[in-house]
Amino acid sequence: MIGSLLLDLSGVLYDGDSIIPGAVQAVDRAQRGGLEVRFITNTSRKTREKLLQHLRMLDFVVEQDQLFTAVDAARQWLRQRNLRPFCLVHEAIAGEFADFEQREPNAVLIADAADGFNYRNLNYAFQLCIEGAPLVGVGYNRYFRSGDKLLLDAGAFIRAIEFAAAAEATIVGKPGAEFFEQVVASTTTPPGRTLMVGDDVFGDVEGALQADLQACLVRTGKYRTGDEEKISGNFDTVDSIVEAVELALASRA
Amino acid sequence: MIGSLLLDLSGVLYDGDSIIPGAVQAVDRAQRGGLEVRFITNTSRKTREKLLQHLRMLDFVVEQDQLFTAVDAARQWLRQRNLRPFCLVHEAIAGEFADFEQREPNAVLIADAADGFNYRNLNYAFQLCIEGAPLVGVGYNRYFRSGDKLLLDAGAFIRAIEFAAAAEATIVGKPGAEFFEQVVASTTTPPGRTLMVGDDVFGDVEGALQADLQACLVRTGKYRTGDEEKISGNFDTVDSIVEAVELALASRA
Repeated sequence: MIGSLLLDLSGVLYDGDSIIPGAVQAVDRAQRGGLEVRFITNTSRKTREKLLQHLRMLDFVVEQDQLFTAVDAARQWLRQRNLRPFCLVHEAIAGEFADFEQREPNAVLIADAADGFNYRNLNYAFQLCIEGAPLVGVGYNRYFRSGDKLLLDAGAFIRAIEFAAAAEATIVGKPGAEFFEQVVASTTTPPGRTLMVGDDVFGDVEGALQADLQACLVRTGKYRTGDEEKISGNFDTVDSIVEAVELALASRA
Repeated sequence: MIGSLLLDLSGVLYDGDSIIPGAVQAVDRAQRGGLEVRFITNTSRKTREKLLQHLRMLDFVVEQDQLFTAVDAARQWLRQRNLRPFCLVHEAIAGEFADFEQREPNAVLIADAADGFNYRNLNYAFQLCIEGAPLVGVGYNRYFRSGDKLLLDAGAFIRAIEFAAAAEATIVGKPGAEFFEQVVASTTTPPGRTLMVGDDVFGDVEGALQADLQACLVRTGKYRTGDEEKISGNFDTVDSIVEAVELALASRA
């Protein structure tokens, strides 16, 4: 019996400005049906405020404390350790790190920096890491979908720096187990009765399974035929969030 | 008894415009002592012509057919397969691929593109590879040394695209076994009596050992304390090319 539902955003609820058909009504049914709903994203091209605005503009009903972002998790992780990060992040979220001392950095944060991923910045990140600075990444996301294009995401660049500096990144978002645990801890439901719904078979589905949650892969967003064959473990693959919510509600009937 | 000597260039013979002390005389002793000498490099910021000029400017005696470059190997590999490469390469060597059709590319070549490693180019490389275009890389070189700085090399970016597109690159330079085999085939010496001398414990030393050559790591160039612990296998670690040549000549005495 599913007690709470963790929903990835892009590719599950919407693609850019287009709502996945039926998604608004499905989220509404889930919340009215007694499921504890959380929104959980590695997206790092928008601030938390902009994400909330975007969701509400698309008519999703979402409260501040239902939204969990990898960017927030990165802030916390760096703050707890009192680090001075070199932030390889998108200009749209640079302000989220404005209150950190960033001169003489002793840590590296890699989010989806988009055009910030240039040789100069990547080289500097590498030089810090090979000298021992901890590397923090939002997630191992390989790519995301934008319109009809797939675009490189932060994971590729995190892997590049890990390889060059022989370092291992701390992943503060999905598929990091701590991130899932933090979200689950905000609900009254144990992990085993929590269902993660996502379009990324690695970050969303495999990550959730490794954190002992249940998981469901949707065939929307970045999903590509055969993705469900890429990992092992027990999970459902469904057409969209509409079917995922039906599954969760049916488990309570 | 060593019959031929394969010498990496940057970090073994010189650092930028500075000769590694004793290197010119050591190469001379090797050639006069009867060793078949080959120069073998993954460097992809200079054309073959510029490399030869640079070596000769520094007083090394080198013939055209003693120099083997990963860039030449890439040209051959692409030409044999009649491919139209998207060339993520340094502007200095773009001309080496001018005779390839590059419109509607159906392959990706990654060399050390330096500032060419921007988001737009990497994204395009990724999009081609995820649709199945073969990925060709000069080598898995993590970084190289320039003055007192370590700089990111092509390997990091090859790894990034491999990860994002779930693809495996064909490495045409070191540590690819085919590259070593091609160089050895230009000599009269079998692999087991060929000594590769390099400052990169992975590309030079591990690669040579895997191709059944002998190998010697020098403590110049990009060498960092402890590098020799990073791989297994039988090889010597010496202060510089001077000692490496002594070892090779001593084996013939």
